[in-house]
Amino acid sequence: MRIDLNSDLGESFGRWQLGDDEAMLEVVSSANVACGFHAGDATTLRRTCSGASERGVVVGAQVGYRDLAGFGRRFIDVPPNELIDDIVYQLGALDGICRVSGTRIRYVKPHGALYNAVVHHEAQAEAVVAAVAAYDPSLPVLGLPGSALLKAAESAGLRTVREFFADRGYTPAGTLVPRTSPGALLHDPDEVAQRVLRMVGDGVVPAVDGTDVRVEAESICVHGDSPGAVELASAVRSRLRDAGVEIVSFVEA
Amino acid sequence: MRIDLNSDLGESFGRWQLGDDEAMLEVVSSANVACGFHAGDATTLRRTCSGASERGVVVGAQVGYRDLAGFGRRFIDVPPNELIDDIVYQLGALDGICRVSGTRIRYVKPHGALYNAVVHHEAQAEAVVAAVAAYDPSLPVLGLPGSALLKAAESAGLRTVREFFADRGYTPAGTLVPRTSPGALLHDPDEVAQRVLRMVGDGVVPAVDGTDVRVEAESICVHGDSPGAVELASAVRSRLRDAGVEIVSFVEA
Amino acid sequence: MRIDLNSDLGESFGRWQLGDDEAMLEVVSSANVACGFHAGDATTLRRTCSGASERGVVVGAQVGYRDLAGFGRRFIDVPPNELIDDIVYQLGALDGICRVSGTRIRYVKPHGALYNAVVHHEAQAEAVVAAVAAYDPSLPVLGLPGSALLKAAESAGLRTVREFFADRGYTPAGTLVPRTSPGALLHDPDEVAQRVLRMVGDGVVPAVDGTDVRVEAESICVHGDSPGAVELASAVRSRLRDAGVEIVSFVEA
Amino acid sequence: MRIDLNSDLGESFGRWQLGDDEAMLEVVSSANVACGFHAGDATTLRRTCSGASERGVVVGAQVGYRDLAGFGRRFIDVPPNELIDDIVYQLGALDGICRVSGTRIRYVKPHGALYNAVVHHEAQAEAVVAAVAAYDPSLPVLGLPGSALLKAAESAGLRTVREFFADRGYTPAGTLVPRTSPGALLHDPDEVAQRVLRMVGDGVVPAVDGTDVRVEAESICVHGDSPGAVELASAVRSRLRDAGVEIVSFVEA
Repeated sequence: MRIDLNSDLGESFGRWQLGDDEAMLEVVSSANVACGFHAGDATTLRRTCSGASERGVVVGAQVGYRDLAGFGRRFIDVPPNELIDDIVYQLGALDGICRVSGTRIRYVKPHGALYNAVVHHEAQAEAVVAAVAAYDPSLPVLGLPGSALLKAAESAGLRTVREFFADRGYTPAGTLVPRTSPGALLHDPDEVAQRVLRMVGDGVVPAVDGTDVRVEAESICVHGDSPGAVELASAVRSRLRDAGVEIVSFVEA
Repeated sequence: MRIDLNSDLGESFGRWQLGDDEAMLEVVSSANVACGFHAGDATTLRRTCSGASERGVVVGAQVGYRDLAGFGRRFIDVPPNELIDDIVYQLGALDGICRVSGTRIRYVKPHGALYNAVVHHEAQAEAVVAAVAAYDPSLPVLGLPGSALLKAAESAGLRTVREFFADRGYTPAGTLVPRTSPGALLHDPDEVAQRVLRMVGDGVVPAVDGTDVRVEAESICVHGDSPGAVELASAVRSRLRDAGVEIVSFVEA
Repeated sequence: MRIDLNSDLGESFGRWQLGDDEAMLEVVSSANVACGFHAGDATTLRRTCSGASERGVVVGAQVGYRDLAGFGRRFIDVPPNELIDDIVYQLGALDGICRVSGTRIRYVKPHGALYNAVVHHEAQAEAVVAAVAAYDPSLPVLGLPGSALLKAAESAGLRTVREFFADRGYTPAGTLVPRTSPGALLHDPDEVAQRVLRMVGDGVVPAVDGTDVRVEAESICVHGDSPGAVELASAVRSRLRDAGVEIVSFVEA
Repeated sequence: MRIDLNSDLGESFGRWQLGDDEAMLEVVSSANVACGFHAGDATTLRRTCSGASERGVVVGAQVGYRDLAGFGRRFIDVPPNELIDDIVYQLGALDGICRVSGTRIRYVKPHGALYNAVVHHEAQAEAVVAAVAAYDPSLPVLGLPGSALLKAAESAGLRTVREFFADRGYTPAGTLVPRTSPGALLHDPDEVAQRVLRMVGDGVVPAVDGTDVRVEAESICVHGDSPGAVELASAVRSRLRDAGVEIVSFVEA
């Protein structure tokens, strides 16, 4: 058995540090690296991409809204044709950084409010897909199972990759428990690792009501910027390895 | 005889328009397109790169300091290692936009205060060169004859291209008349065209004191954003064509 | 009879000029001056505020989303408590510029997408009102008649001022014709001036279907940044003056 | 005996946290609060100013270059007339935030590269002074003893306040040991506290060569954003209190 572990990295900006990229690069197989619009100055991006390259971690472009002040976490009603261009710009910028760091971008994952928007917002989802298809149609798109994004990507002939959130609760319907509800976030490394192992092995995860819910995913998202993030991610990795699961990027699977 | 005409384009930003890119693309053989740090939102850049691509105009990356408020016209004491990364980021971003516009970046020219800095500032000059060499050592660097930039580029094995300013006065020593001195700027299309023709044909131009000064250049810079810019550039182009000079990019010469 | 003429000014940014503030300041009685978030570098703001001060034109703070690339024309889902702070910051900044320009801010008007949002978005409308009330509860709020903004302002005990758009078509229900529909924009100076005169004199304006619709407003908005803007605004002013209507700010009425 | 303790606060930005403002506000008598140009989103600024207000800590405006990516630590060759306006804008913005937080700005201190520039750069020093004088000539200017800034401020009739750096080494000439030289930074809380006590009591401090050097200052700067910053600042405060020195802002002395 094989599975991919992905995490958001490269999210420092100038004087401001966020997360521990060095440590997380020892854990994950795929690094969703910011592209400068919601986070990531060029020097941060180069350090993270070089670190990924040295460790054989695959780099993906974590594209977002142009909103440093809001860290890309606020929906912006960008006209789709402008969003296409903003995303192409980000893809090229990070790919340029990768090029001088001994690697290239290998997939695309939207960030923050854009990630949430393209679950339902078809015009923005199609804009993301149009940008990827125009830039390099061989790049897979990583996103939420069932999202407008993955549907649009599939229609456009792009490879799609579904992800599972290691530390988020799921409803019996297979959707994420909203952050404002009880059970939305899991903090115990053992419990999280146990859930991931069940998802990988059996394709199910216990929902908040205790029933099993079917979840299919080729990648597991572990967060990198919260307290205890590295420990939690490491626990997931160890448990998977102990169970004989190979941690490897979906682009190499 | 052949010569290249270059101009700064893609310098609008969102709601703010600057220059007439459509008109200038009919005149020049090389477009120095902004990369988003001093000017140029992604949609502007795509429009300009597409327009260049359709007309067979060569695109160069006009890299600058990260300073929208100052339009890249204020010296910033960026540490050289960070400047390298900032320039790689810009090269990648514009190259990404080019890629979806049917072209690629073919050369690099610093903008504004960075252009002026790298005439003498060796550490920043070497940073620009290091960025280009790391990103793509086949890209020529366009700059001021005798500048630290061109010297560093030559040492690094990059192709260098010297430029002549069509509408600027020259001292008997072959340097530009400072903008604050009389004779710094020429406005008469006929006079400007006449000077360009002499430079191309004889390798000399009349200095402010009336003597001839030797000027060697493979490209002529015409400005695109001042009142009368298009007329002046068109006059230069017509006069050259009438004299049998072919207007063609240095990358194709 | 008296009426106020207001226009959006101070919307240049660095190298990029927009509109003709000097000319418009000869026409209007109230200047909605940008505050730096959607447009307006500090030097532009000072020049516009000084020009207003010299001519006795009243300055209002035209607050907006933090979005230079989108000119504040894209809805941003800013959490209301952060929007309050963003608006207080803008009020203080422009008031500081006014203070060194011989004047002070005298009212508040939201800009662009924020203006449109607070017609219906109650949480953002209340955030704008909370910011004004906390900064200076003597400042009137200028907005669309019937908007959530003016309702919230009234509830909070702020003075409200309703505006009429000189160059926009109205539906029989008294709302604006959407920009994508026929009759949304009026361009003929005579027609526009005639409509304004009827609104001021009779409190009615012809709707797109030819019927008269009741419109009550204490201020007339004339646009400053489109081609022909100055001519149209001047025509409105002249026609009003010829009819004996005094052009005077609502803060002085 | 009385002395002021000042520290740089309000330097978070959106998602990125820097320093522990809550803890430092328990230690200092003066808070140099960022104004949004080098750091400090509006919500951060409001939280810090409210915290200062509640504790009776005096707020000063820590004005800087417009450079979030560089945290205001890179010299920018801003034309002085534009620098005046940029500083007025920042003063007004922070004063607006203070106004809704139960306080007002009470002094001005330049940040980072601007602080260093105005030690010698007379045109920029005069620009800072001109901004303060125009905005509110009752505001004192806090800076390095002997700097062009304090000289210009004095000439303009502004109150000047000299500061001593608690954790920096001094040369026998009374200047700061450059950061790249040995002895530039002191880390031991006891040693730092001991030096401060000598400076306050005797007006001298041991230079790097062991000799005593005369230092006159009305305020002591303690850093807030390095590891151990709070501990070091607290140690300075305790030692001063134990020695009977009152910690009180210079504006109240």
